[in-house]
Amino acid sequence: MAHPVITFTSDFGHEDWFVGVVHGVIHDICPAARIVDLTHQIPPAAIERAAFVIEAAAPDFPGGTVHLAVVDPGVGTARRALAARARGQLFVAPDNGLLEWALADPGAEVRSLTEPRYFRQPVSRTFHGRDVFAPVAAHLARGVPLAKLGPLVADPVRLARPAPRPVDGELEGHVMFVDRFGNALTDLAAGAIAGAFPGVTEDRLVVLVCGRRLLGIAHSYGDAPIGTLVAVIGSSGRLEIAQVGGHAAERFGLGEGDPVVVAAAR
Amino acid sequence: MAHPVITFTSDFGHEDWFVGVVHGVIHDICPAARIVDLTHQIPPAAIERAAFVIEAAAPDFPGGTVHLAVVDPGVGTARRALAARARGQLFVAPDNGLLEWALADPGAEVRSLTEPRYFRQPVSRTFHGRDVFAPVAAHLARGVPLAKLGPLVADPVRLARPAPRPVDGELEGHVMFVDRFGNALTDLAAGAIAGAFPGVTEDRLVVLVCGRRLLGIAHSYGDAPIGTLVAVIGSSGRLEIAQVGGHAAERFGLGEGDPVVVAAAR
Amino acid sequence: MAHPVITFTSDFGHEDWFVGVVHGVIHDICPAARIVDLTHQIPPAAIERAAFVIEAAAPDFPGGTVHLAVVDPGVGTARRALAARARGQLFVAPDNGLLEWALADPGAEVRSLTEPRYFRQPVSRTFHGRDVFAPVAAHLARGVPLAKLGPLVADPVRLARPAPRPVDGELEGHVMFVDRFGNALTDLAAGAIAGAFPGVTEDRLVVLVCGRRLLGIAHSYGDAPIGTLVAVIGSSGRLEIAQVGGHAAERFGLGEGDPVVVAAAR
Repeated sequence: MAHPVITFTSDFGHEDWFVGVVHGVIHDICPAARIVDLTHQIPPAAIERAAFVIEAAAPDFPGGTVHLAVVDPGVGTARRALAARARGQLFVAPDNGLLEWALADPGAEVRSLTEPRYFRQPVSRTFHGRDVFAPVAAHLARGVPLAKLGPLVADPVRLARPAPRPVDGELEGHVMFVDRFGNALTDLAAGAIAGAFPGVTEDRLVVLVCGRRLLGIAHSYGDAPIGTLVAVIGSSGRLEIAQVGGHAAERFGLGEGDPVVVAAAR
Repeated sequence: MAHPVITFTSDFGHEDWFVGVVHGVIHDICPAARIVDLTHQIPPAAIERAAFVIEAAAPDFPGGTVHLAVVDPGVGTARRALAARARGQLFVAPDNGLLEWALADPGAEVRSLTEPRYFRQPVSRTFHGRDVFAPVAAHLARGVPLAKLGPLVADPVRLARPAPRPVDGELEGHVMFVDRFGNALTDLAAGAIAGAFPGVTEDRLVVLVCGRRLLGIAHSYGDAPIGTLVAVIGSSGRLEIAQVGGHAAERFGLGEGDPVVVAAAR
Repeated sequence: MAHPVITFTSDFGHEDWFVGVVHGVIHDICPAARIVDLTHQIPPAAIERAAFVIEAAAPDFPGGTVHLAVVDPGVGTARRALAARARGQLFVAPDNGLLEWALADPGAEVRSLTEPRYFRQPVSRTFHGRDVFAPVAAHLARGVPLAKLGPLVADPVRLARPAPRPVDGELEGHVMFVDRFGNALTDLAAGAIAGAFPGVTEDRLVVLVCGRRLLGIAHSYGDAPIGTLVAVIGSSGRLEIAQVGGHAAERFGLGEGDPVVVAAAR
């Protein structure tokens, strides 16, 4: 690509200079790249949250995009550094579960980063975002073949995230992420809901959450009166719990890990 | 232009991935574009605040700049989506008042976005920033003529913001925005002040604010001793109330909507 | 360079539009430039903190990079505006100490910005980031020679920061910056420590901080059990005090200015 896109997700925040230094390293190796910051507000070491961000955002990027993710509490220890091709895109991150979405692709090609020629020298022991991951992402964006980066890895670290499955006519998922607007995003994909309740239209489904029973799945936030709690299929194709014109999570005490159950109305 | 500039203003914040996804959509359609984030810290649904940011910032950009603004509590409802040419620049936003500054140009050409070929498909019902506004902004930056986007709109939503007018020898305006430094920006433009008090020099004007009477309009923050409350013409050509070396809004309890009156000294 | 890099550090924050307007000015003058935001979260007027950010980050950028820094409480007063070439890079900032790291290079060439043709016209008295510093940085990135910007300056403002020196077998430094992860970065460079204790290996050094005595300097955060306070050489080559898996500054009450002493173990 003339202008390859590299997304960048981290727990670096914006108070320090770490994000900027990573941009500098990428521009130096691949000046044509467009760098897209997904978020750097991941709480320190919150690997699962960052993995969800990548899972939610990556499908919106075109094939060939390089996704760089650095939430790396194990920097300087023996944890591996990875690059992967999966779902038509490329990924670079420490081997700690960040790439769960990519690794869930059965056709994923995963490699351990062992070739120092693609690193920034000297490699520090505390900032592999700058010295290992960013340079490798930039080299991939320049067209370096994945296979040159190191040997195949058969056992990358996976997150224990069992896919929601229907039990006794109910499909139970969980809140994965509360966004800025207070919407509670779940791990219940629209396709999984449709598969669990074949032939049931969305207006005949009920959603049980925080002691309430919502009838029907709406298609936008604005379909019900202000203040109403609604279940909608959000922009990344997952069930979300939202309050029309309000902050559902604060108002109804919803947080990550809370159960959300879908069933057919009787 | 070889490298068109697209500014981007929203209430998306930086904790989530929404800003990044919009950048990705723009890069995909118009790789040459330079994206400039004005701010994404608009409080959720604060349309008037975002409209003020665009009004304050847009004049600093060259002709042909595309301004993308997404504060969109009505997403998924019947509210229209707009693009406009005004004041030599281009604007893309929901039809909810965000574009007040552009629409106040009597020569503004305003169109409703009705041509799906310029959208990202499929169009979700919850994230038109990604699916409608960003793609249209990118197509405009690529040179798609405004007229191709949809029919003319004669009645776009306007903000009720009466221009300050002199009454009984006083010109009353209001605080529109408190910036990071605690400066209270008003809607009193330097030209309106000059027009209301012809022949009166700035040192002979008084500014009445929060029960105080400031003599003279200063030209920089540093003209008076530390701690002094001063009235200055700020960088966007409006009267500002500032405290030298301090945070005027916190120290003097100034907030949006507070009245600020200019009169001639006796 | 085909794509010159301009870094940008300020106290503008992200709530307002000031950072975006500066980007716009740079893109207009030097469309090929890549702008890298180091941080805009410097507390208002915190010159020393911004100077430390530049000192920590600039060495990671390639020769020829232009560093733009705007923390400018004296805007509109008689303070000078500077550009400098030092350590193979270029710097643009107000004359208030921001460029301490550049100025500490004995070969630095420092000039006062007196040529209005490189400014944005008209020059406001409250926003020289937009009207003076950004345009000059962009012109430097385009290749305008430093000498054209104005006359040499022999007495730029310096920060009073005495380099740590060994006294009675101890090397005393201070905490300069607490980063997002709670690591306390000091002004004790690895080279200064090695020079003060010739022949002493890092495992035979002790670090005295907040009433504790840490034996040995570690090479990564992960070498000791969770919760341990460790002294490490960080990614910018300075001694840092970190808590494994935790926030050292909060947990141990460390803050800027706190003394950190290195000595040889007996």
